[in-house]
Amino acid sequence: MNSFHPPQRVLMGPGPSDVYPRVLEALGRPTIGHLDPDFVGLMNDIKSLLQYALQTDNALTLPISAPGSAGMEACFANLVESGDEVVICQNGVFGGRMKENVERCGATAIMVQDDWGRAVTPDKLRQALQDNPNATLVAFVHAETSTGARSDAATLCEIAREFDCMTIVDGVTSVGGIELALDKWGIDAFYSGTQKCLSCIPGLSPVSFSERAVARIQGRETPVQSWFLDMKLILGYWGEGQTRAYHHTAPVNSMYALHEALLILREEGLEKAWKRHALHHEALKAGLEAMGMSLVVPVEERLPQLNAVSIPEGVDDASTRSALLQQFGLEIGAGLGALAGKVWRIGLMGCSANRRNVILCLSALESVLSASGASIAKGAALEAASGVFND
Amino acid sequence: MNSFHPPQRVLMGPGPSDVYPRVLEALGRPTIGHLDPDFVGLMNDIKSLLQYALQTDNALTLPISAPGSAGMEACFANLVESGDEVVICQNGVFGGRMKENVERCGATAIMVQDDWGRAVTPDKLRQALQDNPNATLVAFVHAETSTGARSDAATLCEIAREFDCMTIVDGVTSVGGIELALDKWGIDAFYSGTQKCLSCIPGLSPVSFSERAVARIQGRETPVQSWFLDMKLILGYWGEGQTRAYHHTAPVNSMYALHEALLILREEGLEKAWKRHALHHEALKAGLEAMGMSLVVPVEERLPQLNAVSIPEGVDDASTRSALLQQFGLEIGAGLGALAGKVWRIGLMGCSANRRNVILCLSALESVLSASGASIAKGAALEAASGVFND
Repeated sequence: MNSFHPPQRVLMGPGPSDVYPRVLEALGRPTIGHLDPDFVGLMNDIKSLLQYALQTDNALTLPISAPGSAGMEACFANLVESGDEVVICQNGVFGGRMKENVERCGATAIMVQDDWGRAVTPDKLRQALQDNPNATLVAFVHAETSTGARSDAATLCEIAREFDCMTIVDGVTSVGGIELALDKWGIDAFYSGTQKCLSCIPGLSPVSFSERAVARIQGRETPVQSWFLDMKLILGYWGEGQTRAYHHTAPVNSMYALHEALLILREEGLEKAWKRHALHHEALKAGLEAMGMSLVVPVEERLPQLNAVSIPEGVDDASTRSALLQQFGLEIGAGLGALAGKVWRIGLMGCSANRRNVILCLSALESVLSASGASIAKGAALEAASGVFND
Repeated sequence: MNSFHPPQRVLMGPGPSDVYPRVLEALGRPTIGHLDPDFVGLMNDIKSLLQYALQTDNALTLPISAPGSAGMEACFANLVESGDEVVICQNGVFGGRMKENVERCGATAIMVQDDWGRAVTPDKLRQALQDNPNATLVAFVHAETSTGARSDAATLCEIAREFDCMTIVDGVTSVGGIELALDKWGIDAFYSGTQKCLSCIPGLSPVSFSERAVARIQGRETPVQSWFLDMKLILGYWGEGQTRAYHHTAPVNSMYALHEALLILREEGLEKAWKRHALHHEALKAGLEAMGMSLVVPVEERLPQLNAVSIPEGVDDASTRSALLQQFGLEIGAGLGALAGKVWRIGLMGCSANRRNVILCLSALESVLSASGASIAKGAALEAASGVFND
């Protein structure tokens, strides 16, 4: 057995995305202690960079030391108590995972279903809240990674507030890729991931809690069922005071990486990053459509950073993805859940959202599909994509 | 705000320890997908390297994608159900954390207390099991990082088996530093950390479950309260089959690092690594004693990798540690819990257990203590430590 040297890949799946070289460089710097004064300074910087990325002044804004699904669990385990009623708007895989979380807290999940590949319908949420006056929480996914649909978080949060409900919002794939404004939209609890539009390594989950959410956590009648994810304890380590109480050993090197990725985002600026994702999505879409392929999500509900494209009739899912990987080192994603075998998910996330990647993806797809005998329009994709860039 | 460049440190606290340069190099390699065939191969290698490090054939041996306290929670949340009775032998901070875990599972913790700084007393465990015939689980810490005490895991597991109880063992600080043999000792569930004697970055927690433990998990009457840590779901991703079901996005780069650290351990060989820790402990101890300082834990119960030393009368804890850090870039640990302010914890873990570090630590301590006017024997430490090395 030898040291592992990863193959060269271009990551255009649902995440991880390609990681910025600067982030990898930061990641590999020598480890220091998690209570070192210099590390505590880094934690402060990360908090303020995260507040910028999420557009929030929430004091309780920090990265959970585990992947996005632990961030999800941190939100639910801290805000939900046994017996609570939680309305969950589901339009993909991750709404289902929310349900699992609610039920494992001994609470009741009231499911509001929308088609996979569509945004959450605000009126359905309103109806559910009218029908369930005891509900105190609303949860939904802002950017559904499993389908590529974007929901109107501002409107959904407004409806929740009308019914005096707090909100838990999944923004794993939104941060850095599309407009996001926690405070303006009134999001109470938010979790995300690092390996999507931040182009950081996977393994951390930035979360943020509003003052209302913190008050709810402080006022719980029962202890949070997870010790590791108990925000009251985590606050002792991440809090404002001079003394940082040991809770767990922070993933020091991953924090170097997150800091660098957030710095890059701030250097570019949020609006520019959002526009960059939108532009490259337009080019990819133009190319895919010129080839004769179509996106699953209606145009006004599409995420630029996650493009679910229907697999053309007669084309084999797995062997196509495998050929892209083997021949071009290009990773695109498979469909998940209800969309498994029916779509590919092409990510344009963070530093993966660049012109080189768009052209590579279109050209490689054209090459592999042509070789497999699929009936696609040839030579049109590159021209269509270039047209968008040169507009 | 600029890129973060960590200060130069020598890590001789309770962990993280100095990370092998080879491990940092592996960590910073380009990220690939968590379902990439090459990554799946890496997962298989990590599993078999972990089986060697833990001396087990357990099929369910893998790193949890979060720090040691999440590994602890994975063991308790999967094996404990509401209403269970769990005997916990406590002789330091981490036994207390086990109690928190048990109670948050809705179960009863039966505490068996030993003095902090001492090993767990086997007869006390036997008595507790006689007194509590409904107990089905025994939990204890093999190597108490908060005190530096080593307990006799083989004997404690044997007693648990006599009473038909399964065992959960905390080996966060043991792996790679002292003898450890999961299968020979009959440990049912085990969790550890990467940032101690493996000299890997913090953030992962290797765990291992015996067949008996897996059967108990499969036979649970209630769902595991944590979705993120549900071993039945994690098995779908880490299992033997060809299809790896997506559960969460693995911390890909941290896994590169763990692979490299485990490879280094296998290259050195377990027995040699244990001997190296023991030798450097002897030298450090000789030096500390020559200076007039004393270790807290009795000689036959001492961990070589974690040395709790009494703070000399009249010496200020915080300002001494701060001077070591400021003047020499040397990190040693503070006391925790009952030992806060009373001891320093000097780690000799993984690649931190080397001759250079021992000499640096003794010389820096002598320099700082002398400057603060403490009454310590001067010039003797270096000679005493060298004597051990040259023996």
